[in-house]
Amino acid sequence: MTLQRAEFSKLLQQVRARSVELCQPLEHDDYLIQSAPFVSPPKWHLAHTTWFFETLLLVPFFEGYRIYNPAFHYLFNSYYESLGERLARPHRGSVSRPVLNEVFRYRTHVDEALAALLQSELGSEARMVAEVGLHHEQQHQELLLMDIKHILFQNPERPRFLPDIGKEISVDLPLSFESFEAGVREIGFSGKGFCYDNELPRHRAFLEPFAIANRPVTNAEFLAFIEDGGYRQPALWLADGWDAVRRNGWEAPLYWQNGNRGWELYSLHGMQTLPLSEAVAHVSGYEADAFARWSGARLPTEAEWEAAVRSRPEKVLNVGHVWEWTSSAYAPYPGYQPLSGSLGEYNGKFMCNQWVLRGGCGATPANHARPTYRNYFEPEMRWHFGGIRLAKDVK
Amino acid sequence: MTLQRAEFSKLLQQVRARSVELCQPLEHDDYLIQSAPFVSPPKWHLAHTTWFFETLLLVPFFEGYRIYNPAFHYLFNSYYESLGERLARPHRGSVSRPVLNEVFRYRTHVDEALAALLQSELGSEARMVAEVGLHHEQQHQELLLMDIKHILFQNPERPRFLPDIGKEISVDLPLSFESFEAGVREIGFSGKGFCYDNELPRHRAFLEPFAIANRPVTNAEFLAFIEDGGYRQPALWLADGWDAVRRNGWEAPLYWQNGNRGWELYSLHGMQTLPLSEAVAHVSGYEADAFARWSGARLPTEAEWEAAVRSRPEKVLNVGHVWEWTSSAYAPYPGYQPLSGSLGEYNGKFMCNQWVLRGGCGATPANHARPTYRNYFEPEMRWHFGGIRLAKDVK
Amino acid sequence: MTLQRAEFSKLLQQVRARSVELCQPLEHDDYLIQSAPFVSPPKWHLAHTTWFFETLLLVPFFEGYRIYNPAFHYLFNSYYESLGERLARPHRGSVSRPVLNEVFRYRTHVDEALAALLQSELGSEARMVAEVGLHHEQQHQELLLMDIKHILFQNPERPRFLPDIGKEISVDLPLSFESFEAGVREIGFSGKGFCYDNELPRHRAFLEPFAIANRPVTNAEFLAFIEDGGYRQPALWLADGWDAVRRNGWEAPLYWQNGNRGWELYSLHGMQTLPLSEAVAHVSGYEADAFARWSGARLPTEAEWEAAVRSRPEKVLNVGHVWEWTSSAYAPYPGYQPLSGSLGEYNGKFMCNQWVLRGGCGATPANHARPTYRNYFEPEMRWHFGGIRLAKDVK
Amino acid sequence: MTLQRAEFSKLLQQVRARSVELCQPLEHDDYLIQSAPFVSPPKWHLAHTTWFFETLLLVPFFEGYRIYNPAFHYLFNSYYESLGERLARPHRGSVSRPVLNEVFRYRTHVDEALAALLQSELGSEARMVAEVGLHHEQQHQELLLMDIKHILFQNPERPRFLPDIGKEISVDLPLSFESFEAGVREIGFSGKGFCYDNELPRHRAFLEPFAIANRPVTNAEFLAFIEDGGYRQPALWLADGWDAVRRNGWEAPLYWQNGNRGWELYSLHGMQTLPLSEAVAHVSGYEADAFARWSGARLPTEAEWEAAVRSRPEKVLNVGHVWEWTSSAYAPYPGYQPLSGSLGEYNGKFMCNQWVLRGGCGATPANHARPTYRNYFEPEMRWHFGGIRLAKDVK
Repeated sequence: MTLQRAEFSKLLQQVRARSVELCQPLEHDDYLIQSAPFVSPPKWHLAHTTWFFETLLLVPFFEGYRIYNPAFHYLFNSYYESLGERLARPHRGSVSRPVLNEVFRYRTHVDEALAALLQSELGSEARMVAEVGLHHEQQHQELLLMDIKHILFQNPERPRFLPDIGKEISVDLPLSFESFEAGVREIGFSGKGFCYDNELPRHRAFLEPFAIANRPVTNAEFLAFIEDGGYRQPALWLADGWDAVRRNGWEAPLYWQNGNRGWELYSLHGMQTLPLSEAVAHVSGYEADAFARWSGARLPTEAEWEAAVRSRPEKVLNVGHVWEWTSSAYAPYPGYQPLSGSLGEYNGKFMCNQWVLRGGCGATPANHARPTYRNYFEPEMRWHFGGIRLAKDVK
Repeated sequence: MTLQRAEFSKLLQQVRARSVELCQPLEHDDYLIQSAPFVSPPKWHLAHTTWFFETLLLVPFFEGYRIYNPAFHYLFNSYYESLGERLARPHRGSVSRPVLNEVFRYRTHVDEALAALLQSELGSEARMVAEVGLHHEQQHQELLLMDIKHILFQNPERPRFLPDIGKEISVDLPLSFESFEAGVREIGFSGKGFCYDNELPRHRAFLEPFAIANRPVTNAEFLAFIEDGGYRQPALWLADGWDAVRRNGWEAPLYWQNGNRGWELYSLHGMQTLPLSEAVAHVSGYEADAFARWSGARLPTEAEWEAAVRSRPEKVLNVGHVWEWTSSAYAPYPGYQPLSGSLGEYNGKFMCNQWVLRGGCGATPANHARPTYRNYFEPEMRWHFGGIRLAKDVK
Repeated sequence: MTLQRAEFSKLLQQVRARSVELCQPLEHDDYLIQSAPFVSPPKWHLAHTTWFFETLLLVPFFEGYRIYNPAFHYLFNSYYESLGERLARPHRGSVSRPVLNEVFRYRTHVDEALAALLQSELGSEARMVAEVGLHHEQQHQELLLMDIKHILFQNPERPRFLPDIGKEISVDLPLSFESFEAGVREIGFSGKGFCYDNELPRHRAFLEPFAIANRPVTNAEFLAFIEDGGYRQPALWLADGWDAVRRNGWEAPLYWQNGNRGWELYSLHGMQTLPLSEAVAHVSGYEADAFARWSGARLPTEAEWEAAVRSRPEKVLNVGHVWEWTSSAYAPYPGYQPLSGSLGEYNGKFMCNQWVLRGGCGATPANHARPTYRNYFEPEMRWHFGGIRLAKDVK
Repeated sequence: MTLQRAEFSKLLQQVRARSVELCQPLEHDDYLIQSAPFVSPPKWHLAHTTWFFETLLLVPFFEGYRIYNPAFHYLFNSYYESLGERLARPHRGSVSRPVLNEVFRYRTHVDEALAALLQSELGSEARMVAEVGLHHEQQHQELLLMDIKHILFQNPERPRFLPDIGKEISVDLPLSFESFEAGVREIGFSGKGFCYDNELPRHRAFLEPFAIANRPVTNAEFLAFIEDGGYRQPALWLADGWDAVRRNGWEAPLYWQNGNRGWELYSLHGMQTLPLSEAVAHVSGYEADAFARWSGARLPTEAEWEAAVRSRPEKVLNVGHVWEWTSSAYAPYPGYQPLSGSLGEYNGKFMCNQWVLRGGCGATPANHARPTYRNYFEPEMRWHFGGIRLAKDVK
């Protein structure tokens, strides 16, 4: 834990309160919906993040802690094999009990215990778990917004989650490419503050000369790809991507709709005319890759992305609009060591069949948008805020 | 409509109120769950039965009626192709809006309009629709209880829906068979009162001599089948039934559990020790058929069942404990005519790949338990209250 | 066995030779293909029918018989649970050994043993098995032709199996309906000669007055249904039928093709212009049912069909062109008793989820086209020669 | 083309003849089987490699060439979207025509045309295509052996394809690790001779210090993993790997069998007692990864593998026993350019969701076992000859 105990305690309280606050605009009914196997009901998120603290911090480190309800262990374990049997992910929306208010009471019970625990000094392992728990809760805040968007979109009237907003968040400066020389770069987290195990160890990578775009791709640019028949030309696509296009019937990014009023976009602010100057989002890795090929460019590797953003942040702008797909498969860094105990399942076991995204988006807690942060999804996924940054080889 | 208008109006009000009342023990969260593709959330039932009256009665027959929300048409149409596109059944649990309270407001809006409509005389077609609507709502009351049981059972703590009950509803009189001579019998509804189109026309059927059990099969008897290895002997099963046993891993009826405390049964009253003298329920048609074969008997045809119950109701007892699987595939009677208009889709189009059940169960509204009533399910289904009545050939 | 031993022995020899002879036009490669899970490679048919005689007749009744290869028992058991584990049906096309010539040697080995066995008198059970084996082999001769047609049709060049033929086998006499009075009829096999257990016992059925068409539906009539949009109107279809139309993308019967040269039909004689006056074939039960509804008629029940054909064979013509779908689900007759031993699995366990067809087709061995013969398929199947006979209620 | 024309012509003739020769031990029936969706019938391989030369070399570059049969274009195109519609891969085993002898005639026709074409000088593009075609044919020779093994294994008697062999091909020298310093290495093909586009361009990569095993893992070592419960400990597995273990019921590598005679192995020489000192093969990438974790090691990256084998071939032995799974996802090298035209689909579009294997195996044509060669499969695949090489981080 890099903060003082009192500060951390206060921060933890804020983060925990924030999760509940984020859900405030929801109706009771919205909390319970699992709109796809990869979506979790908001009620489940609120319970799972609480279970995480209870199971990994309070039970082992807070003497005399009373487990709120032992039956929750089965219901709210996400994927920790070392912690026993659990409810299969696609059934999270089939469990009505505990009811929503009971989940709020569970949060209060655990929050009080956390506050009590943090009145004394913690040992180093407990401090580590507490800090991971806090960042874990923040990750779920982004997941909550992703899932809420997907859940509300199932309703034919496309309800608004947040008040209307005034204007586009434009990234529409002229597109240019920033060039970088070949050389050995340092990759991975260094310095103070928290990072996940997958950002370590800091290590060296050789980069051949490359260039990277100064900003993400806009909706206008992606619309040109659509209008040029991009979704109908197999030559632009990876084989698995082309298979996904046909299997899913993709003709545009998720949340795009083309009707009487032309192209519209669903966001947490409701339906709106497609904001042309905003960064395109909700594309799969396959669509990002195909768009790049159509543009005569390619996606950056995650090492290129990190090197570029760290060395010239003022020229590689707009980080934070969307998560940017890289061409890198999610893999351990040389010398990677997972955390010990159950937290060892946090990152390492997912290091296959996924692609890394870098950056962050409007739903990302501020302290998660660091340049070394490694987000990852299967390349066919689109419900997270995934966009496109172009890169090029330089001869 | 066989009742006077005022009486019908009052009855309709009672039936509509009963649907809401049935759900009273539910928590808000329970209303929203779709625990399997064949289950509908209670909220959906409450809305769908309301949509039925609105669409088929109020819109065509009540001048000046204001549709509550045109968007509901897509959401709450169950299967009427003639009424346009609709939400696919497996997604009924993915729609959070309208929220529950809005559904209750929808019910009130429609109930008020129904009351107003029924202050004047109705034409004959409107009367027919109104009457079908009332019985339709009653059918959904039984579906509600089936679905609620399935939904609550998903919760690992197996919550109780209704207060505890005192004692078993025993059917355990000594088993005997009642014999019937060969001959032509009249089958199908006759007389006054309501019936569905599938109970008509009354027609003749020749029955070879047969015998039928005086009561349904008990849990004790079915337990003997289990203990004799009934689920492990392919010779007892239809080919599709044996395939279902292996595919689903069946080892007992639905809602049976075998653990430290021996065999237990889940009911709307919660978990209880298996009540040995009660009628076995929640078996598939395949299990019913296999049990009968193991018993050296067979299932009755629906004509045998109807003939026996109508001619000697005092000897063929206990109708009303469980729906009783017959060996008859659901098919039109000779001369069958579906209702006109959209109501023509109510029964006729489902007349394939299902088996008829006769009788009724504790969840069945009293006026639906008539001897000519034809319930039907695919033979693999188990979540309705399906039990077993034995029959035999007589030489 | 209704024939004298010597006659039977000679007939058996002919039937066994006929199976091999039927396959003569095949290339070696054609023998090995399983073009769909429900199709078996011709090589498998030739081996399975041989295995049937070996296992059920020679092993139990021919002392000193040497099993050709014990490994074949697993490979060529079709569905007899009582005879042990077996190769799953969809994998019949994945087994290359024994090779084709070895299967022919297997046939010779068994044929020789059968001839030797039949030089002495058989007991009654052996006689029964021998006779079932002969009819079983004949059933597989029809299956062979069904499967060969399906296999060859997978080849884009649509090869011809048999030499070209001269002219259409027209059924195109003017359509009329033959009426029958209400009354009790005798249904099921009687008299001398062989029948299957499912044709017994002869029993009584009451038929309300009905009328039945004098001939099957023609390709011209079915074409009118297509051109009238029959495949696009859900009101014409059973719910499961409409689901099958959309799921399978049906727009015409199997083996119909619509291209530059208009409608063409694939048959064992190759591609030809659609022969308008021939009986339509290769429709599913759902298509037969929808066509009948479109025609203002219905399908006959199997009892109606049998009663009509037996009482006025000269007025209900053309039996033998196609198997005619009835509306009857395949079920046991009152008093039905399956054969003893493994042959008890021959028919009884398939008595669910299938529809009965009556009649026969060009591929049917002559002695199988008797009026009491019950053919059956799932209503979605189309690769057998299933056509349509219309019927009507008479007031 | 790096060889002189005459030499190339002779080599091509040899390679083409080799494909046919490889299949000689097959029975006719074996040629036609598709034992899994990822397997192709040997007949298809022989036709497809011929189609490749016809379509990509003869048609564009040999004036006056007569296409053997235009219908083959649909049947024998593997995955070239730019060349039009094609038979879906899982149906390659459903097509009986052309028959096997016709495929041999097709080969002769094309071989003669190739010989004629190569009597004149080719332009540079034709030379390139010819050379790719030759290596393509060699790749299919390895695929043929993989597929033949899988096909023959479906037969319960596990037939032998090749004559028995005398003794194990042992790799069982004492296990040690060879250490390498950190530094920039050159990766990718250089020098004379043929390579695929995916081996280019040669580029630089930084490697942190690492160590790599002197030999592949043996069957004895893998058996220890099994006996230690490796297949039952989720902590050893990637999440997707653990899912594959449970979904597929894996308990040992493919072709291992444990029965009365202990562990046995199926190979092209038939069933044999598990040869303990041979390199383990037919493990998935997930099993390779789990074994490495259980060993306290990890899989090498492909850059580590290549650097090690090129710099100290005498210490990193036994390359050629099995393909060795690396931890590297298959991705383009910096600056990668696919070939032009349809050959651009040869490699690039498959660069996702697969893992790279390096080395070669007994089935690999000698000139394909170069240190820069990149083989690749989905990590769940096991029917190729994939084994394990361990690596370690060095502090």
